[in-house]
Amino acid sequence: MPESIGFIGLGIMGQPMALNLIKAGHQLAVYNRTAAKAAALQAAGARVVSSPADAARDANVVMMIVSDSAAVEEVVAGKGGILESLRAGALVIDSSTISPTVSRKMACLVAGKGASWLDAPVTGSKHGAEKGELTFMMGGDRAAFDRALPILQVLGKKHIYCGSHGLGLSAKLAQNTIQATLLEVFCEGFVLATKAGVRPETMLEIIQSSLARAALTDFKAPFIFKGDFTPYFPLKLMHKDLELAAEAGYAQGVPMPALAAVKEVYMAAKAQGKGDLDYAAIVTFLEELAGVKVRT
Amino acid sequence: MPESIGFIGLGIMGQPMALNLIKAGHQLAVYNRTAAKAAALQAAGARVVSSPADAARDANVVMMIVSDSAAVEEVVAGKGGILESLRAGALVIDSSTISPTVSRKMACLVAGKGASWLDAPVTGSKHGAEKGELTFMMGGDRAAFDRALPILQVLGKKHIYCGSHGLGLSAKLAQNTIQATLLEVFCEGFVLATKAGVRPETMLEIIQSSLARAALTDFKAPFIFKGDFTPYFPLKLMHKDLELAAEAGYAQGVPMPALAAVKEVYMAAKAQGKGDLDYAAIVTFLEELAGVKVRT
Amino acid sequence: MPESIGFIGLGIMGQPMALNLIKAGHQLAVYNRTAAKAAALQAAGARVVSSPADAARDANVVMMIVSDSAAVEEVVAGKGGILESLRAGALVIDSSTISPTVSRKMACLVAGKGASWLDAPVTGSKHGAEKGELTFMMGGDRAAFDRALPILQVLGKKHIYCGSHGLGLSAKLAQNTIQATLLEVFCEGFVLATKAGVRPETMLEIIQSSLARAALTDFKAPFIFKGDFTPYFPLKLMHKDLELAAEAGYAQGVPMPALAAVKEVYMAAKAQGKGDLDYAAIVTFLEELAGVKVRT
Amino acid sequence: MPESIGFIGLGIMGQPMALNLIKAGHQLAVYNRTAAKAAALQAAGARVVSSPADAARDANVVMMIVSDSAAVEEVVAGKGGILESLRAGALVIDSSTISPTVSRKMACLVAGKGASWLDAPVTGSKHGAEKGELTFMMGGDRAAFDRALPILQVLGKKHIYCGSHGLGLSAKLAQNTIQATLLEVFCEGFVLATKAGVRPETMLEIIQSSLARAALTDFKAPFIFKGDFTPYFPLKLMHKDLELAAEAGYAQGVPMPALAAVKEVYMAAKAQGKGDLDYAAIVTFLEELAGVKVRT
Repeated sequence: MPESIGFIGLGIMGQPMALNLIKAGHQLAVYNRTAAKAAALQAAGARVVSSPADAARDANVVMMIVSDSAAVEEVVAGKGGILESLRAGALVIDSSTISPTVSRKMACLVAGKGASWLDAPVTGSKHGAEKGELTFMMGGDRAAFDRALPILQVLGKKHIYCGSHGLGLSAKLAQNTIQATLLEVFCEGFVLATKAGVRPETMLEIIQSSLARAALTDFKAPFIFKGDFTPYFPLKLMHKDLELAAEAGYAQGVPMPALAAVKEVYMAAKAQGKGDLDYAAIVTFLEELAGVKVRT
Repeated sequence: MPESIGFIGLGIMGQPMALNLIKAGHQLAVYNRTAAKAAALQAAGARVVSSPADAARDANVVMMIVSDSAAVEEVVAGKGGILESLRAGALVIDSSTISPTVSRKMACLVAGKGASWLDAPVTGSKHGAEKGELTFMMGGDRAAFDRALPILQVLGKKHIYCGSHGLGLSAKLAQNTIQATLLEVFCEGFVLATKAGVRPETMLEIIQSSLARAALTDFKAPFIFKGDFTPYFPLKLMHKDLELAAEAGYAQGVPMPALAAVKEVYMAAKAQGKGDLDYAAIVTFLEELAGVKVRT
Repeated sequence: MPESIGFIGLGIMGQPMALNLIKAGHQLAVYNRTAAKAAALQAAGARVVSSPADAARDANVVMMIVSDSAAVEEVVAGKGGILESLRAGALVIDSSTISPTVSRKMACLVAGKGASWLDAPVTGSKHGAEKGELTFMMGGDRAAFDRALPILQVLGKKHIYCGSHGLGLSAKLAQNTIQATLLEVFCEGFVLATKAGVRPETMLEIIQSSLARAALTDFKAPFIFKGDFTPYFPLKLMHKDLELAAEAGYAQGVPMPALAAVKEVYMAAKAQGKGDLDYAAIVTFLEELAGVKVRT
Repeated sequence: MPESIGFIGLGIMGQPMALNLIKAGHQLAVYNRTAAKAAALQAAGARVVSSPADAARDANVVMMIVSDSAAVEEVVAGKGGILESLRAGALVIDSSTISPTVSRKMACLVAGKGASWLDAPVTGSKHGAEKGELTFMMGGDRAAFDRALPILQVLGKKHIYCGSHGLGLSAKLAQNTIQATLLEVFCEGFVLATKAGVRPETMLEIIQSSLARAALTDFKAPFIFKGDFTPYFPLKLMHKDLELAAEAGYAQGVPMPALAAVKEVYMAAKAQGKGDLDYAAIVTFLEELAGVKVRT
């Protein structure tokens, strides 16, 4: 059933997601801080509006995917934010990766207007957004989850209900902690082996013959071996997510020593100007420290 | 073609490996520091001898798998060591996980007797040893590798030639660095998500739907969820391998910050009495720190 | 010259500071969230009020020292906060240790009322607060610093002007990073030496004969040797400051690997129930990991 | 009383130590692997010999200070080593910073010749060696310590008896762990504060007004502020000592998370070509990561 959807945030992920919603027959009012990015959506039939409030005004569903906690707070509660116009009974789906604490605060504000809130961060990168093959990790009321499902099935293949408000984000941050550390230590191991004299292809064959075989390293190894760091997921965003995970660990009293160490490595790589490259460029930082290249 | 093999070290890995060699028709002279462990081999047809030198005396091939660098040095160059009797032209295959530097020293000593040396550490744990499904990572002369291959095909499915002396070990240490860190950070993530309120099964479904999916975590998760830490690979041995990897990083000038952090976690878990459990028991150390249990 | 001062926050530090201001002849209107803590101040001549706004209403100077960023935001901009009543021309001095970013936001809000803001965190613990021997690290306009000086000279011996808004806090967080890490690594070293068999007094003599001699370790060693962890500065507050330092490092793009590692140790100690002890109790966490006690 | 002393190792520390012994009236037979370094000693009256064995042949006391465990093993037990000629009743004093385990093995070998062994590592750097103001941390029999004392009083002001064989080294490694970490975290804090906008001199004043004041940072700060990294103690040697400390932690079951993190920072700095600079050059590595300079 076609819905009237306000869509906020047309970045690397938001743009293909919004296009897929239009293709599925929904009516979209789109807003982006940088207006120019809305052109493709307008061409596809979206109505371009000039504030989050305008996007939300006539919408049954508001969907957003913006850069960080501050941006979400601005979109929701800032001047021209959705709180100014949100309909009672509306559903707000936030796919931004932000602090679970901030997300819960937004859920409260939205509830004050008689609307529902879901945290619904995604994995799958730009590629998954384009193909409608994202995985959604979702937190909020079960009824809101059920209502969101038909819409989100256009955008992804997996929609995992994680529990109450914020738990979609908690799961996402745990997932990214594992993913970012796995890639970093994969690179540590490859730099060690390469500097000793083992060929990278040989080392990869060993990893792929072992329990350490991971989908991530199968996927990233060829890019690493070629030195191709075109961003699927920019290093600076991975670093941001690791900072959120560390803050979540602090808030929940969970010591995370591997995360703590690895976060500083991504930080250092970002400080060396690698923030806009794919996060697999972490290998180049380790290579520079060790004076060796993992290339085939 | 049946070979006359001296086999030294009948521990958790050595015992099934030696049995598989006997089943394949080879003639074995076996030695173990603790003589009692040789009984099963004797029953299977092995000749039990009372020193490494005796095991090597009439052997074309000497195979060994013992606990650490000091043990290998003792077996090779100590009193009653194989250097006392090793035949010119013999091949020594060492499947112990030890320092690449020590291994290269042994290769030199053995070369002084006109014999060849291969470092040939394995992955696959006890299970793989029993089924003959180990993976061998091998360093040394290519000709020695070729000669060893028919024998080792009885014991494993993959035999990966890594290059000159010590490089099998370098690859193994890199592999274990990745594997041990992957498991530790998997546990960090699960403790974080669980303490936030996400169910472990839900978190596992998320990981398995993501690029972070790894054979290791698919395999270990059910044991972690049940709290079953029967040792496939004891935590204290994983810790030992991480120490060797750290020393290799030092020797080669490769900074390894994730390894450094994770090694201390395994160390702390070992110091808390978990050394003889499977290394997946690292989760219980993190659980105790955070005051939550990742159980289903 | 006696001033009319609104004083907010009567905790372990605030109570003796407020008393010293009264002794110096200032007129105080005091507020504390838990009203009972105001009794001693009332007995000493302070007027007890029931909101930050009431404390600020007639004040030329508002001073506050509360627990964290959220508490400062509440005192300033919450319901009954000082923004409701703050006079144009007033000076607000905040001695809380909080996020520099939040502090700068408060400075803006206060400037909107025509008042001035100084971040003025302290070192010196409860003892220094009682004796009027604190060190103040201060950020804000130079004129505001000059105006605050006569008042703060009652409370401390050193008042160091660090620059613009937030820089007093930046300096404080850097200082605590150094102090907390110094103590933690002092304990690591003592646990290592003690477990090897060196007597702690001998080890202390060595440190005190070396360049590693620090005022902190001279001061803390006797307490550590006796196992006396009566809180001068509670471990949980040190951990909070380390988290703020880590967030500042993130915000400014400064990798801080030692801080990252040490913060997780304090976190783990806090999770083990040591949060209300002095932060020197970090030694007991390391002792438990290593199975040895640094006692004389 | 003048003694006949064999002195082995004429590096940055050994040369001034040997000269001081000659000035005190002792008769020295000196050996250095690189013969050229013995010229100054010969001019001062030493007899230059061509092997450790020759140095030890007529000596009542053998003193050595060489680069690492392998060098000590070579000097003692290698071809032309002191074991070939060591007199029964002689005393061997080893001021090298090496593995306590290796040192204990040397003590055993020397005992087999009826001689005594002391581990006697020093702090004080080149400057202290020249002025005879070193601190000695000593392990071995008390009687051997008493016998060594009159000789070592020429070389240092403090001679601290730490207990049985190896404990002088254990104390030294603990001391260096504290010292190296203190300096590194001092630099982390200064980089953080500087990047925020605090002037380094201001930050130093704060540290010097706080419990974090340390002799080391008083001494090193002016060099750091000037960017003068003329080696008092080369970074690569500090890194070597940290590796020894980490190995000691491993051997004794002592988790050392701060050491682990900091060691990788020194490693990375060394890999960036800073190994021959003073270890205070660690600041330049952190500066490069953060893109800011701590200079006045």
